[in-house]
Amino acid sequence: MPKTLKAKKGSGLVTLLTDFGETDHFVGVMKGVIATVAPDVRVIDITHGVAPQQIRQGRWLLAQSWKWFPAGTVHLVVVDPGVGSERRAIAVEALGHLFVGPDNGILSDLVTAPKAKVRQIANREWRLTEVSATFHGRDIFAPAAAKLASGARFASAGPLVTDAVWLGAGEPIRTGKRFWTGEIVHVDRFGNLITNLTPETVPCLTERPAVFRAGFRSVSGLSPNYAAGAPGEAIALIGSHGGVEIAVNCGDAAKALGMGLGAPIDVELL
Amino acid sequence: MPKTLKAKKGSGLVTLLTDFGETDHFVGVMKGVIATVAPDVRVIDITHGVAPQQIRQGRWLLAQSWKWFPAGTVHLVVVDPGVGSERRAIAVEALGHLFVGPDNGILSDLVTAPKAKVRQIANREWRLTEVSATFHGRDIFAPAAAKLASGARFASAGPLVTDAVWLGAGEPIRTGKRFWTGEIVHVDRFGNLITNLTPETVPCLTERPAVFRAGFRSVSGLSPNYAAGAPGEAIALIGSHGGVEIAVNCGDAAKALGMGLGAPIDVELL
Amino acid sequence: MPKTLKAKKGSGLVTLLTDFGETDHFVGVMKGVIATVAPDVRVIDITHGVAPQQIRQGRWLLAQSWKWFPAGTVHLVVVDPGVGSERRAIAVEALGHLFVGPDNGILSDLVTAPKAKVRQIANREWRLTEVSATFHGRDIFAPAAAKLASGARFASAGPLVTDAVWLGAGEPIRTGKRFWTGEIVHVDRFGNLITNLTPETVPCLTERPAVFRAGFRSVSGLSPNYAAGAPGEAIALIGSHGGVEIAVNCGDAAKALGMGLGAPIDVELL
Repeated sequence: MPKTLKAKKGSGLVTLLTDFGETDHFVGVMKGVIATVAPDVRVIDITHGVAPQQIRQGRWLLAQSWKWFPAGTVHLVVVDPGVGSERRAIAVEALGHLFVGPDNGILSDLVTAPKAKVRQIANREWRLTEVSATFHGRDIFAPAAAKLASGARFASAGPLVTDAVWLGAGEPIRTGKRFWTGEIVHVDRFGNLITNLTPETVPCLTERPAVFRAGFRSVSGLSPNYAAGAPGEAIALIGSHGGVEIAVNCGDAAKALGMGLGAPIDVELL
Repeated sequence: MPKTLKAKKGSGLVTLLTDFGETDHFVGVMKGVIATVAPDVRVIDITHGVAPQQIRQGRWLLAQSWKWFPAGTVHLVVVDPGVGSERRAIAVEALGHLFVGPDNGILSDLVTAPKAKVRQIANREWRLTEVSATFHGRDIFAPAAAKLASGARFASAGPLVTDAVWLGAGEPIRTGKRFWTGEIVHVDRFGNLITNLTPETVPCLTERPAVFRAGFRSVSGLSPNYAAGAPGEAIALIGSHGGVEIAVNCGDAAKALGMGLGAPIDVELL
Repeated sequence: MPKTLKAKKGSGLVTLLTDFGETDHFVGVMKGVIATVAPDVRVIDITHGVAPQQIRQGRWLLAQSWKWFPAGTVHLVVVDPGVGSERRAIAVEALGHLFVGPDNGILSDLVTAPKAKVRQIANREWRLTEVSATFHGRDIFAPAAAKLASGARFASAGPLVTDAVWLGAGEPIRTGKRFWTGEIVHVDRFGNLITNLTPETVPCLTERPAVFRAGFRSVSGLSPNYAAGAPGEAIALIGSHGGVEIAVNCGDAAKALGMGLGAPIDVELL
């Protein structure tokens, strides 16, 4: 959807993606800081349901989300097991959007994007006066995102970074001429098992008959939608995210198959 | 609360009611699409905690909620087990508000309201360029709601629909001269069992002594509030929604009585 | 962060802190009422995950949150086991902010603040025409907060209150010359056990070697951050809230130690 490749300064919109959950005050406090630093900025939650400290899941959820927002949006991402250690705080300008978060790989897809610029967040005027050891979401990331969304120059963030952490492409492994092993990168609320098997990473995935193996179950072919298949039957389909997911019609695939985040899913093209 | 019977065009307010939960990116992405299509529109979440694919529960939650919003609000409702199948997408203008969702009965109470108008959402300019098979919330419903909230004419949605799905009135069944059988239509966060037994559907419910039977427990009479009754005691009261609910003082009625969504509750008027 | 000690009238911002959870329509309906009473007021959720009816936990979460918002913000707090009984509804002007909630002790820290003013919410124009016995969040508290946030005078709320409920200071107990017994006041989403042991309530806590005893486990000393300690090891650190919390590196302390809300944590200063 994004048409503009140059980030508009001061879009006035910040999104939040964290592993903070919704039962604590953490997210509310970050919004309070944003409202204090930049009263006119609007905040939209993507989700706070990343599994605790699961950087790869956070990366996948970000990849599904950011491009549906207006150009110039500031995406604030906090999944930060190394908070308080030496890892850097970074801001990234890429693909017409801005991103703020820890330099731990969660921004892997952005730091490697064409024409991406990465800066360390080092400007002391972009952070709270006191910085705690445990809540950089409040003390560093939220005020930096508020600054960017209210029109502060990206170049003011701090020095350019050229060695930002990159966690690899996150693609399935080819294990034979007609075989690939992918991985469950997200389990959604309905228990659908979402994989990194896509038409881009597995050539001919949608053109040739395929058999998926998930634990002890085999699923043949791709269904057109969730309503296909008898109730209780496991099916495979291309989800709204563009990748293969294993679903159970009127049911919960994660429970039915006993599988979760990180587990392998094999595909054979016949 | 709504005074106006004619929907104000462009109220600028969209509410969201879905079964998407809060752990995925789905709701955030819908908000991103709304912000892209209509940057000035505000979004308020009603809840995303409808049990997966439970159309009747979604209908009940909508009935409890929409009338507390300003006239002209656009209520976007997505509980959509048939996504990708042949079911229509519809918009409804009724009782001074606007409603957008799948034509699967979740809008039953609105399509049958006095002077209601129902239209199929068929205008190609009201949807994203590419429509997936699995996420009409993002591709069709969100942009349509954004269009309506930002002032697009209701009549532009598409052709009038005269046979929208209606799931019946959802009322208790009279099983004897002094007996009715109702049903648990919602279990709230506190475990209170909320039923479709109301003073409107069970005449004299609040005027005559009543005995409620829920599983193996009998509850006599209606209490004035949750604080009535000893701790741990099951009580019946008229909830804020206007219907009978079974509660346990300082406890969780669903756990204490072992009952849930869809289970019967009998009432006898003495 | 707050610089102003005098609450600005009509800040236009309301925060919400309740035990309503996110699976029901309650929070959405409160926001609908606010949008109806005061269309320009913005609402920010702090959390709706207070454990049902846990006034002390709600008090602690409020103490962690309110000061991070702009001066003049109206904080609406609803943890209300006594709804429908005789407990009063109050508004508090304190420390440059405004607070609205039940008079059950959840506002203890504010009603005792220097120069605090407390008023009963008695003005009939500040509530909905019909007031239910079970949902004062919707019928009384939300419209009152909307009135205050949109510029209504605090003095118009109702008569001054001089005997608002106070639940004590909530501090640890000194059990010996070098010993204190604190309490778990919150368990966060990561399972970290947050206590009321702070450098203010336990003198020299951060200057002298300390041993913490949580159930059957002893933890020596304060770690600088969550990344300290081997994976699976229990550590103690000063959290972002300024108090001691017990954490498990890459793990869930509540599960690992089998402890929860209200349980004692001892500290010995060596």
